[in-house]
Amino acid sequence: MSAPNPILVEVSRGDMVESYHRGAAAVVRANGQLVVAWGDVERAVYARSAIKPLQALALVETGAADRFRLGDEEIALACASHGGESAHIECVTRWLARVGLNPEDLECGPHLPLNEQAAAELLRAGALVSRLHNNCSGKHAGFLTTALHLGEPTRGYLNADHPVQRYWQQVLADMARADLTQAPVGVDGCGIPVRGLSLRETATAMARLADPTGLTATRAAAARAVVRAMIKAPFMVAGSGRFCTEVIRHAPVPLVVKTGAEGVFTAALPGKGLGIALKIDDGAARAAAVAIGAILISIGALDGAVRDRLADHLQPPVSNRTGLIIGHMRPAAAWLPHGISL
Amino acid sequence: MSAPNPILVEVSRGDMVESYHRGAAAVVRANGQLVVAWGDVERAVYARSAIKPLQALALVETGAADRFRLGDEEIALACASHGGESAHIECVTRWLARVGLNPEDLECGPHLPLNEQAAAELLRAGALVSRLHNNCSGKHAGFLTTALHLGEPTRGYLNADHPVQRYWQQVLADMARADLTQAPVGVDGCGIPVRGLSLRETATAMARLADPTGLTATRAAAARAVVRAMIKAPFMVAGSGRFCTEVIRHAPVPLVVKTGAEGVFTAALPGKGLGIALKIDDGAARAAAVAIGAILISIGALDGAVRDRLADHLQPPVSNRTGLIIGHMRPAAAWLPHGISL
Repeated sequence: MSAPNPILVEVSRGDMVESYHRGAAAVVRANGQLVVAWGDVERAVYARSAIKPLQALALVETGAADRFRLGDEEIALACASHGGESAHIECVTRWLARVGLNPEDLECGPHLPLNEQAAAELLRAGALVSRLHNNCSGKHAGFLTTALHLGEPTRGYLNADHPVQRYWQQVLADMARADLTQAPVGVDGCGIPVRGLSLRETATAMARLADPTGLTATRAAAARAVVRAMIKAPFMVAGSGRFCTEVIRHAPVPLVVKTGAEGVFTAALPGKGLGIALKIDDGAARAAAVAIGAILISIGALDGAVRDRLADHLQPPVSNRTGLIIGHMRPAAAWLPHGISL
Repeated sequence: MSAPNPILVEVSRGDMVESYHRGAAAVVRANGQLVVAWGDVERAVYARSAIKPLQALALVETGAADRFRLGDEEIALACASHGGESAHIECVTRWLARVGLNPEDLECGPHLPLNEQAAAELLRAGALVSRLHNNCSGKHAGFLTTALHLGEPTRGYLNADHPVQRYWQQVLADMARADLTQAPVGVDGCGIPVRGLSLRETATAMARLADPTGLTATRAAAARAVVRAMIKAPFMVAGSGRFCTEVIRHAPVPLVVKTGAEGVFTAALPGKGLGIALKIDDGAARAAAVAIGAILISIGALDGAVRDRLADHLQPPVSNRTGLIIGHMRPAAAWLPHGISL
């Protein structure tokens, strides 16, 4: 193992820092130029749900989205780790019905809605948890729709050798300019195969999503459609009070951010032509959000007014069971002392 | 900041380690001798709920437990981060009634039971979440009972200058042989004041709980009563399927282990006269359990049969939403390669 990654985020309680999170991050231009890196950005990481916007390219560039008249809400849901709130469930339900499928065709497992209120309401109503509530159900609806469009079987669409999985993995390899043939293989929370890429490669793919000028016309159009959908329908990307939704909605410049399990976060900034990818070593989601927020501030993507508005996301207070604020999560004092010059 | 703490726990997915956790740990004898240390064991940490067994000493040594005829179950609950299952709630309810108090006297906030099934049942039944469900409600019942016994007001028992808080903090200072006057101050999740102690000091206090021969007769009896209660009523310490309950119940030697928020774990081993304290830097509970398990194995406190039985706690599989095991949490390969010689 190389030198330890730097401390990116500190969690204070009262007089002292109680816990802290190390990690690595890369900010990259569409031509692959590394603008800035912290820690080891060459180690392979699974980007998990943070690359759903790249997975959604397959849905759009194959023509599946156009053929089934999917709008910004559906495309945003294909990029989402949604909260399982009623608007999310209704949209996925309508989408599946439109393409002639039903919730049982989703091969992601069921789980309680990520949104706590939605989960509590479901339990109070005595309703069953379904695959629609899986935060990835929009992505899976996207895979199913792509399979239908390509004339492939929908059943078994999770398998590594299914044409839909092979298709988006090729998209990922192209976008990241990465050789996936030797990349580590794993299985994601929702069942799809995942490959380990470096943060530099992952950020490169996000930068090309942001600035698709070097891509084929078809893929460039798909990239613009995916970014536009996330910006037009940010609620569908996550949900009530969630970091991704709030940052996309309130950022003063067009940008997308996307969380992934085990402490991954990505961003794509069309105006600046930049992609960002980071991973917290220990997998903590709480730290990944604070870290991507700090980088966005540092590169000038979030101004003062938005920083005030999003303060509870950017430097979240730590509250206890009695409702008292007893600490804060903050970017580490020794990290990012000044703005990044681009 | 001193050198980074070592990697104690790795979380794999498929072909590679996806996330990893650094931390520090101390194994100490009752005379304060450091048997072994990993990482920085002198940095102050809040031991959080991992020192509830030390807080419970106040309940016993003042005579409050005897006066109100508390049994092993109540004393174990005073040491607990319980799951809010019916047996826990019923026992705290009976206890409060016996001393003439009711749930509203608890000043910890309410939260849904830690036990997922208990939480779901509560929601399905349309019942209200109460302070009884707070995982610390047994500890708070202990504070209230101690206040009653000492003739102090029960109201405001959470405040730093309340005699009950001052009493147990003095117990902690004595047991840990620590000077708390300069120690960092914070507020715990349940509202009580907490002080930062080093892992060496925390482990010293746990070692003296395990081997109380150097304590006053009253405190030594209290220490034995607390350890006995946790061993006799391990379900009350945590609950169904929980690490603390299962390890205490199945260990081939008498021992207690106790989890604390933000990645802390302690253990006390009466037969060996040892105390253990560890903290995962990033606060991850999942890693703290694996790390304390690895140390217990390493010092010979868990034999082969128990290790098989507790395999899902000691090296927990990582499952996805489809039920597939896609990885494992394990002690880091480079840590603890051999047993510790005592």
